[in-house]
Amino acid sequence: MYNFNFCCPTRVIFGKNTIAELPKYIDRSEKVLMLYGGGSIKRNGVYDQVKKALEGYNLLEFGGIEPNPKYETCMQAVDLIKREGVTFLLAVGGGSTLDGTKFIAAAAKYEGENAYDDIMINGIEIKDALPLADIITLPATGSEMNNGAVVSRLATSEKLAFHSDKVFPKFSIIDPEVTYSLPLKQTINGIVDTFVHVMEQYCTYDVNAPLQDDWALGILRTLIKEAPKVLSNPNDYDTRANIFWCATCGLNNWISQGVPQDWATHMIGHELTAFYGIDHGQSLAIVQPRLLKNQKVTKSKKLAKLAREVFGFNEVVDLKAADLAIDAVEKFYNSIGMKTKLSDYEIDANEAAEKIRERFKARNVRLGEKGAIDAETAYNILKDC
Amino acid sequence: MYNFNFCCPTRVIFGKNTIAELPKYIDRSEKVLMLYGGGSIKRNGVYDQVKKALEGYNLLEFGGIEPNPKYETCMQAVDLIKREGVTFLLAVGGGSTLDGTKFIAAAAKYEGENAYDDIMINGIEIKDALPLADIITLPATGSEMNNGAVVSRLATSEKLAFHSDKVFPKFSIIDPEVTYSLPLKQTINGIVDTFVHVMEQYCTYDVNAPLQDDWALGILRTLIKEAPKVLSNPNDYDTRANIFWCATCGLNNWISQGVPQDWATHMIGHELTAFYGIDHGQSLAIVQPRLLKNQKVTKSKKLAKLAREVFGFNEVVDLKAADLAIDAVEKFYNSIGMKTKLSDYEIDANEAAEKIRERFKARNVRLGEKGAIDAETAYNILKDC
Repeated sequence: MYNFNFCCPTRVIFGKNTIAELPKYIDRSEKVLMLYGGGSIKRNGVYDQVKKALEGYNLLEFGGIEPNPKYETCMQAVDLIKREGVTFLLAVGGGSTLDGTKFIAAAAKYEGENAYDDIMINGIEIKDALPLADIITLPATGSEMNNGAVVSRLATSEKLAFHSDKVFPKFSIIDPEVTYSLPLKQTINGIVDTFVHVMEQYCTYDVNAPLQDDWALGILRTLIKEAPKVLSNPNDYDTRANIFWCATCGLNNWISQGVPQDWATHMIGHELTAFYGIDHGQSLAIVQPRLLKNQKVTKSKKLAKLAREVFGFNEVVDLKAADLAIDAVEKFYNSIGMKTKLSDYEIDANEAAEKIRERFKARNVRLGEKGAIDAETAYNILKDC
Repeated sequence: MYNFNFCCPTRVIFGKNTIAELPKYIDRSEKVLMLYGGGSIKRNGVYDQVKKALEGYNLLEFGGIEPNPKYETCMQAVDLIKREGVTFLLAVGGGSTLDGTKFIAAAAKYEGENAYDDIMINGIEIKDALPLADIITLPATGSEMNNGAVVSRLATSEKLAFHSDKVFPKFSIIDPEVTYSLPLKQTINGIVDTFVHVMEQYCTYDVNAPLQDDWALGILRTLIKEAPKVLSNPNDYDTRANIFWCATCGLNNWISQGVPQDWATHMIGHELTAFYGIDHGQSLAIVQPRLLKNQKVTKSKKLAKLAREVFGFNEVVDLKAADLAIDAVEKFYNSIGMKTKLSDYEIDANEAAEKIRERFKARNVRLGEKGAIDAETAYNILKDC
């Protein structure tokens, strides 16, 4: 096991009717900005619940944070914050709204000229950020219990991530009931996103950390059992609760302490989203199976364990078991209605492969737990997608 | 799944040579009191490592916190703290040293007449406590990542627990290498303690929280695999690291969110320790198998899952599988050298059963996840121990 340093100070308030508890956690003296996305929270009742809970607060609103939140939109919120003297940010929505809010929290306290270049590309240290919290309505990104965010820039078709302990949510309210009304596509995207998050942290090389492995596989086992249930019975509370807790635990870094991490599927998937606008979950489901095939030898021990301890195969030869695991993962995605080929989304694989190769070349990218995936390897992976 | 509210703000610094990182986490302006136990840290080099790391700090010492830390000893430390104006507590040792330090941190800021009565028995709200941190040297109690402590009072043969968010350690340093020199008995006690902690949180009734179940069982699976290794090769780093991380995760409340908890084995075991001075781990190993037999019917679903998913039994009838699981747990304890009968410790079962029945009657105790264990039931359990 590797050395590690772990702290997650976010308070999680999980369960039915928890939005009403908001006033326990935000001081009356705060000037609160509620941030949200395209308005689904107005249709599913969450907006009304928040407004009711925060009656009497000094409350402003900023709507319109889009999926794959855009820098350009975020900076409009920053302007509003500075103009109005906002002191507390409350993101209400999915991971995109929350990720945008994390960037906004940092950018609102940033003094330089170009927040995107400095925070996302140059990786400057975030010295301060506005306090933020969230009511997370979509089980997918795990952003409700971590310090990371992914934000895109329209002007340059870029989609990049940043991390800072200054943007841990002060608290996250998770009421699984608000997910009853999720469109099917978003439920499926969230399950795949969670599955891939876990794989990025688990499926590398073995460092003799059996508890971390078992916990990662535990999330996958649970997802595989709960996913068909949510498709057939979307209003079952426990199923929704279990899927949400899987999503949160899939990226709150509990399973990644002391082990290597990959994230190459995400990095390549982000480019597909940046260039072609496909959903994040879709991009992952397309890239991952081919990437695992490409990296099968170095990942064989973990893939074989996945085959045996999640999918129940008895195959004793690691490389053969690895093949079975990769096929089983893709079949699982297909079984819940997630398509896994670029052609399913009318994207030309050769064109995508070439575009992304050029971008990775320019950035001299080396991805994966051992830096083994360079621009050329990414090209080979994408060609087969 | 039940609603839950979770926050663990403690930073964990885990791995080789991490004690040297102390100055990163304690401000130079603090007046630090280093608290420890009977002096094992002087023999295993930890004391010297701490002194070296904190060179130049204003550092006082308080040694002699005993296993099952005593109120009477803790109050001596409180006197020293008040006399010297100590501002930061650093516990260096096992769970007893840390638990004592948590009580000291609260008692040092408590203004009333009798800290033990008020904090441990009357359960007053702790409004303030001195900041504390620890270098934890024994994998067992999980105290390094939770807000609880168990402290005994010599004068009244009492052993009770308290919880307060004010006594979360600011940070916990875990260097598995310091456990190489642990006496065999302490290693075994720690493994059993961890196993029982997990069972207290897992082995109740089913509330459809499969991820919590899987994670709990993951700790048990890991312990069962790692325990024989540490006995045959006590200086293997990864084995020591895996056992330590199991102990921490066994009681940092990650596995207990949204599920019922038991703790009857602990409550009865505490009395055995209070009356007869046997080790905490020993007391648990004695009580647990008989308690599980006694409560088999209400716990049958979880016991059956334990039998199948940890011990690999194929028995399909829950009650039969439950018996197999209980026997397998006791055999596991015995296999690592832990004795599980009162007679092994020259304690008369009938006498112990009667003594503890009287105490529980006086306190009108009802233990277990459904309050099903009253004084009479505890008597029946202990009689068979």
